[in-house]
Amino acid sequence: MDIKLKDSERIDDLQIKGLKIIQDKEGFCFGIDAVLLANFSKVKNNAKVVDLGTGTGIIPILIAGKSRAKEVIGIEIQEEVAEMADRSIKLNNLEDRVRVLNEDLKNIDSVLEVNTFHVVTSNPPYMKPDGLKNINNKKAISRHEITCNLEDVIKAASRLLMHHGKFFMIHRPIRIADIITISRKYKLEPKEIQFIHPKVGKAPNLMMVAFTKAGKPELKILDPLYVYKEDGEYTDQIKEIYSRQDIGEN
Amino acid sequence: MDIKLKDSERIDDLQIKGLKIIQDKEGFCFGIDAVLLANFSKVKNNAKVVDLGTGTGIIPILIAGKSRAKEVIGIEIQEEVAEMADRSIKLNNLEDRVRVLNEDLKNIDSVLEVNTFHVVTSNPPYMKPDGLKNINNKKAISRHEITCNLEDVIKAASRLLMHHGKFFMIHRPIRIADIITISRKYKLEPKEIQFIHPKVGKAPNLMMVAFTKAGKPELKILDPLYVYKEDGEYTDQIKEIYSRQDIGEN
Repeated sequence: MDIKLKDSERIDDLQIKGLKIIQDKEGFCFGIDAVLLANFSKVKNNAKVVDLGTGTGIIPILIAGKSRAKEVIGIEIQEEVAEMADRSIKLNNLEDRVRVLNEDLKNIDSVLEVNTFHVVTSNPPYMKPDGLKNINNKKAISRHEITCNLEDVIKAASRLLMHHGKFFMIHRPIRIADIITISRKYKLEPKEIQFIHPKVGKAPNLMMVAFTKAGKPELKILDPLYVYKEDGEYTDQIKEIYSRQDIGEN
Repeated sequence: MDIKLKDSERIDDLQIKGLKIIQDKEGFCFGIDAVLLANFSKVKNNAKVVDLGTGTGIIPILIAGKSRAKEVIGIEIQEEVAEMADRSIKLNNLEDRVRVLNEDLKNIDSVLEVNTFHVVTSNPPYMKPDGLKNINNKKAISRHEITCNLEDVIKAASRLLMHHGKFFMIHRPIRIADIITISRKYKLEPKEIQFIHPKVGKAPNLMMVAFTKAGKPELKILDPLYVYKEDGEYTDQIKEIYSRQDIGEN
């Protein structure tokens, strides 16, 4: 294994199936959101999957490791970040099933064949860039809607998916009105929502949504997910998700 | 007090400020939903309020009893039910501030002056009438979208409210996508959502939404409400709401 690390980089063990990831200590490191979303996604055997705004590549690596997807493609606009994700894919020997494209998801039509993918995932920037000063900062691009906004992400997902394909997204519940309005505009119907609460009794600060392209309107609200127990430890729900072996579906 | 009761009717004590209500034992009796919604509503002194699909009149009676609203009008399409609500208003000596109109909310433009109300509330029928057999049944009309659907209710609320007026509705979370799509169509912006869970760990089966007419998009998700404790008793949250003295705002 001769994967080179830059001075500011480290290798983290994902504690599942021996998967590892390279992260830049000074850049945006993946959070619980990405892990929850990868495990929320349902991926059938031989599925073709795209992850929009893939960052470190955490979602493609987890999906490839936990399913029998045929092909998982991460789209990342930042060249340095895409190159780092590419090394993580090699580090895990996943080159035959996973690749990263250093592309702008707004140009997805000219990069990938539309209407052909079974699954699209995205953990997009949550925040509006209002008042943000340093918009060239790598962390800022991962967190704020600088290079793409919510509508760009939803539109790209809709373009890529085949009829009845699935889009899995994690975002903030305060954006739920925009998420629903925009997704319906692009024929993505919300079918399942799971709210994620920091702990029992607190408002949800994250939500995962499963959409079906051209699905009929029929929404299920799943039981809530609580991240921390009263003592500050992860709940058993979260521990179960982190250690889940298989997100595949037959 | 010479309020007459029919054989099938009884008087229930609302356990707050001596308020009482007449209910038909064979008809639709108010549930926790109506009580939660009345207490979720913010009603300023001298406000003009309309409750759409008022049924027994529970929401106008609670709002009038717990606030200094100037005028609270209930709209009820079923003649017998409206007449019973009218007797409940007299039973509580609230005739000077509360009245019930036996009208169809789809004709609201010809009944009340549009763009003039501060607050509209509604605990509408939750269920679609698909496959329903007895659509003339009083309980069915209260529970199913037979005489009006979600869009009729939201449209009527929007018509009645003044600029920046507030609409408070309780409904099922599985309808959230329709609620948001339709409310935005009628310029009602969701500003606060509170999800109501039967108990900790279970998916919410009710939600309350506060909309502002022509409000700017900025949504707050409130801490969740849990109805029952593990032992099947009401939570302290619910007990506090039932016993709340004042929902007024200055």
